Amino acid sequence: MCRWMAWHGQPVLIDELLFKTQHGIVDQSLYSRLGAEPTNGDGFGLGWYGTGPGPAVYRNIAPAWSDTNLRELAANVHSPLFMAHVRAAIGSPVQETNCHPFRRGQWLFCHNGFIADFHLLRRDLMLAIDPELFAEVHGSTDTEVVFYLALTLGLEDDPIGALEATVGMIEEVAQKHGVDDAVQATFGTSDGVHLWAVRYATGGDARSLFTSADPATVRDLYPDNPRFQRLTEEDRLVVSEPFSDLPGVWREVPESTAVTVGPAGLLEERPFRPLAPGSG
Amino acid sequence: MCRWMAWHGQPVLIDELLFKTQHGIVDQSLYSRLGAEPTNGDGFGLGWYGTGPGPAVYRNIAPAWSDTNLRELAANVHSPLFMAHVRAAIGSPVQETNCHPFRRGQWLFCHNGFIADFHLLRRDLMLAIDPELFAEVHGSTDTEVVFYLALTLGLEDDPIGALEATVGMIEEVAQKHGVDDAVQATFGTSDGVHLWAVRYATGGDARSLFTSADPATVRDLYPDNPRFQRLTEEDRLVVSEPFSDLPGVWREVPESTAVTVGPAGLLEERPFRPLAPGSG
Amino acid sequence: MCRWMAWHGQPVLIDELLFKTQHGIVDQSLYSRLGAEPTNGDGFGLGWYGTGPGPAVYRNIAPAWSDTNLRELAANVHSPLFMAHVRAAIGSPVQETNCHPFRRGQWLFCHNGFIADFHLLRRDLMLAIDPELFAEVHGSTDTEVVFYLALTLGLEDDPIGALEATVGMIEEVAQKHGVDDAVQATFGTSDGVHLWAVRYATGGDARSLFTSADPATVRDLYPDNPRFQRLTEEDRLVVSEPFSDLPGVWREVPESTAVTVGPAGLLEERPFRPLAPGSG
Amino acid sequence: MCRWMAWHGQPVLIDELLFKTQHGIVDQSLYSRLGAEPTNGDGFGLGWYGTGPGPAVYRNIAPAWSDTNLRELAANVHSPLFMAHVRAAIGSPVQETNCHPFRRGQWLFCHNGFIADFHLLRRDLMLAIDPELFAEVHGSTDTEVVFYLALTLGLEDDPIGALEATVGMIEEVAQKHGVDDAVQATFGTSDGVHLWAVRYATGGDARSLFTSADPATVRDLYPDNPRFQRLTEEDRLVVSEPFSDLPGVWREVPESTAVTVGPAGLLEERPFRPLAPGSG
Repeated sequence: MCRWMAWHGQPVLIDELLFKTQHGIVDQSLYSRLGAEPTNGDGFGLGWYGTGPGPAVYRNIAPAWSDTNLRELAANVHSPLFMAHVRAAIGSPVQETNCHPFRRGQWLFCHNGFIADFHLLRRDLMLAIDPELFAEVHGSTDTEVVFYLALTLGLEDDPIGALEATVGMIEEVAQKHGVDDAVQATFGTSDGVHLWAVRYATGGDARSLFTSADPATVRDLYPDNPRFQRLTEEDRLVVSEPFSDLPGVWREVPESTAVTVGPAGLLEERPFRPLAPGSG
Repeated sequence: MCRWMAWHGQPVLIDELLFKTQHGIVDQSLYSRLGAEPTNGDGFGLGWYGTGPGPAVYRNIAPAWSDTNLRELAANVHSPLFMAHVRAAIGSPVQETNCHPFRRGQWLFCHNGFIADFHLLRRDLMLAIDPELFAEVHGSTDTEVVFYLALTLGLEDDPIGALEATVGMIEEVAQKHGVDDAVQATFGTSDGVHLWAVRYATGGDARSLFTSADPATVRDLYPDNPRFQRLTEEDRLVVSEPFSDLPGVWREVPESTAVTVGPAGLLEERPFRPLAPGSG
Repeated sequence: MCRWMAWHGQPVLIDELLFKTQHGIVDQSLYSRLGAEPTNGDGFGLGWYGTGPGPAVYRNIAPAWSDTNLRELAANVHSPLFMAHVRAAIGSPVQETNCHPFRRGQWLFCHNGFIADFHLLRRDLMLAIDPELFAEVHGSTDTEVVFYLALTLGLEDDPIGALEATVGMIEEVAQKHGVDDAVQATFGTSDGVHLWAVRYATGGDARSLFTSADPATVRDLYPDNPRFQRLTEEDRLVVSEPFSDLPGVWREVPESTAVTVGPAGLLEERPFRPLAPGSG
Repeated sequence: MCRWMAWHGQPVLIDELLFKTQHGIVDQSLYSRLGAEPTNGDGFGLGWYGTGPGPAVYRNIAPAWSDTNLRELAANVHSPLFMAHVRAAIGSPVQETNCHPFRRGQWLFCHNGFIADFHLLRRDLMLAIDPELFAEVHGSTDTEVVFYLALTLGLEDDPIGALEATVGMIEEVAQKHGVDDAVQATFGTSDGVHLWAVRYATGGDARSLFTSADPATVRDLYPDNPRFQRLTEEDRLVVSEPFSDLPGVWREVPESTAVTVGPAGLLEERPFRPLAPGSG
């Protein structure tokens, strides 16, 4: 169990969203309200697009709430597109190579949820990774394997399609091993231009996922909130858990749904349908 | 806010009490029930008396729940007297020198609670430490200062008396600075033979503290519990928070009370009365 | 590049060998003299057989020279058989799951050296691991893969034979990928009764390895050294690098040699000959 | 023993100086050539002036050479003025609050060297700190005490004068305690506009300190070096140890000398003369 959030919009100081919200992701690391576990203290990561050629990543095994370097970084870096993740380890080691977001080239990837009985499926799933990419898997999480499977199956060309194929393959491998309800997930990924998010669980009852409402609506609802008044039409948040209790600000993403966020305020939803390997 | 526990009795594998109880101290690091804060994930420490000339101390800034070395250590070390502490930092840095228990010579010391407005009092309190000991204060917690004040005021000769003098002095310094309700505390300390514990708060409503009931009573109450049947007359636990919900096993220590645990099952309580510097 | 050491003999305080020697393994972490790199500051590990059902392992990503917990542990734990390793990471992440010794059941395993171009061979080598063991590989080092290959190929029944088969297989896989001089190694492994060590490099010029000389000889050579006078006939050290410059105390293990150390002072050497998969 | 460096000039990617030089500060953390100790692996820090209201600080207890987050940060942050420090702990704990540079408001401060027998002087020196600042001393290094003494004695108004008064006071306190050769130091400090550096040792033979030569000279000497051709007239480096062996690029700062670096390529040297408390 974990929590993640992503921002796509005008460049903002990362601090504004990580630490200055009522119930932001760092607060959620200590007291998550909607999560399967209330504490997400087994490391965290921040990936941001900024001045470098690709995304930068800061990861640490300390709990996010006590990391002084994260506060420094957040207070000094602006970004138009970033992703933060706080981790509850449920079994795999607490080490930087297990912290999300994972990165390859222009791509970031994070996950809230799990692959059921991953130890039974790990070998078959790793064998399905493109041999050229195999040696790039440095950690031991299910999520990193999902990311490399998705890269193998075309993430860079068709992110949602590749994730549908990846989930379909995992479900098929799981079935072969007698594992039910294989995938429990919200995924977030980005190439620095668009941001994609998925909410899906094989057995239903997927982890929570929300998007921020249309900025104009938010501004109108809360005319006295100076933070909301600074929102522009292009600003969008995708979060595991709302940052506040304010009615009208957050919209739940339905189960089995993929979201695309893009420039100029683009926000689209479509059904997410896993595709078994032989069925394409 | 923190949680601590101490064992005094037959030599036991530390594991038995740290990890194999229903709701032991490591479990409390993740989900404390009675604490002011539910999470105590800002480091921990274990001090034990064993085969060496003095107590050994293992401290780490990682949360206790994810520390694999702690599990190894606990599963391989026996001790007749040990103390464990999980920390919620409330402001001071997460670093090993701020983890309890603190040690000097044969002595261990730990604390659940705080000195109110410690930053206002820190200089005056540090000046009151024996100049010979001043340079031994390596961290930045209020607790370490309390420990060195108590050493200055005679901890090694009369532990409870020295703590009464220490609390009295802190309250006086606090009053001088206009700080109310200066001390909120349960303290635990040991010289390897006895174990002393104090429950006290200047303004009342002190942090919780419990001792285990008489072993014979516990055995009789739960004749089918193999762990309890192994208890001998000399076995005593002092804990911030019970390890189980079993009625009759835990006795709350009253407020403003000092407890002495010693060989042969000794368990005594007496009133704890802070002594202001000029009033002795 | 790394350094390791192992003790087999009378129970000793670990401290005696880790910190109280002239140029012990912790000193080697800061200033190795014979190593390919002078600094081995990328984590360390200590595995010891003692009071528990199997070996205990303490691993940390901090440099050994500054780890205060290691000093505490070493000063308080006695063991008749233990293994310590200091690491220079040469590329793979600094994380506990990459620290030696690795453990499975009763077995410990450590390595000084490397598999050449491991990223090219990793997939093929991991596929050769027993599928039942695959999910137990938690880190990303070449050494952990070597250990699980050796377990797959019979380490528990015939340690040296299994290591000959493992090295033979790695050399064959390397050849297939056009990688020369595949294996550079000293290995150390134990089941808690015997200790085995191997010095071997595919292209020759293997990393250094030494055993301590016959205790009677050492005592006679240095009659005024109280530490040496305490040696009994069963005491043996295997080390990457001598702890002292004293003549007559250390014997270099020849290249392509396997050493077996066992109860009652057993010390045997035999040639180490890698066995290619099809040639058995 | 430590190493530090500071840049004052055109905004540069921090990476350029931390990782892309022949023998930069991170390389010096592993293999210092001129230092009293070759390894500076007990933590490090980076302080930079950039987009925030004051300097940002990133500190870590891991060795600089293996910190992946430092590489990310350096590759993504530009700054016209920054300071980096790698630490060899010589006794005090390895913790973030002991990592340089220290910060207060707009000010950064770092140090290579030590106060002799600091444990004997610590109390007297801490008492001399402005009581308002006392509680801000969070770590246990001599350097942090020097910084707060300098703040007490006017660092913000006259940096070099305040350091002369601070060193004079330390020498006087040391003399009172029978401690010779009290101060061994190069100091670096900045307010975000100027950069000041001092080379001084009570007993002479101060730690090394260098400034980069006039940019025009450097460009003329090495017309084929593209990095040097990008230097402008305002670019200046102050370093414990040169980043390269190139003749003519580095100028040693004489002993007992203070350096001021400022906008528009300002570089001034003047004698540094400690001022005893009563002698002003």
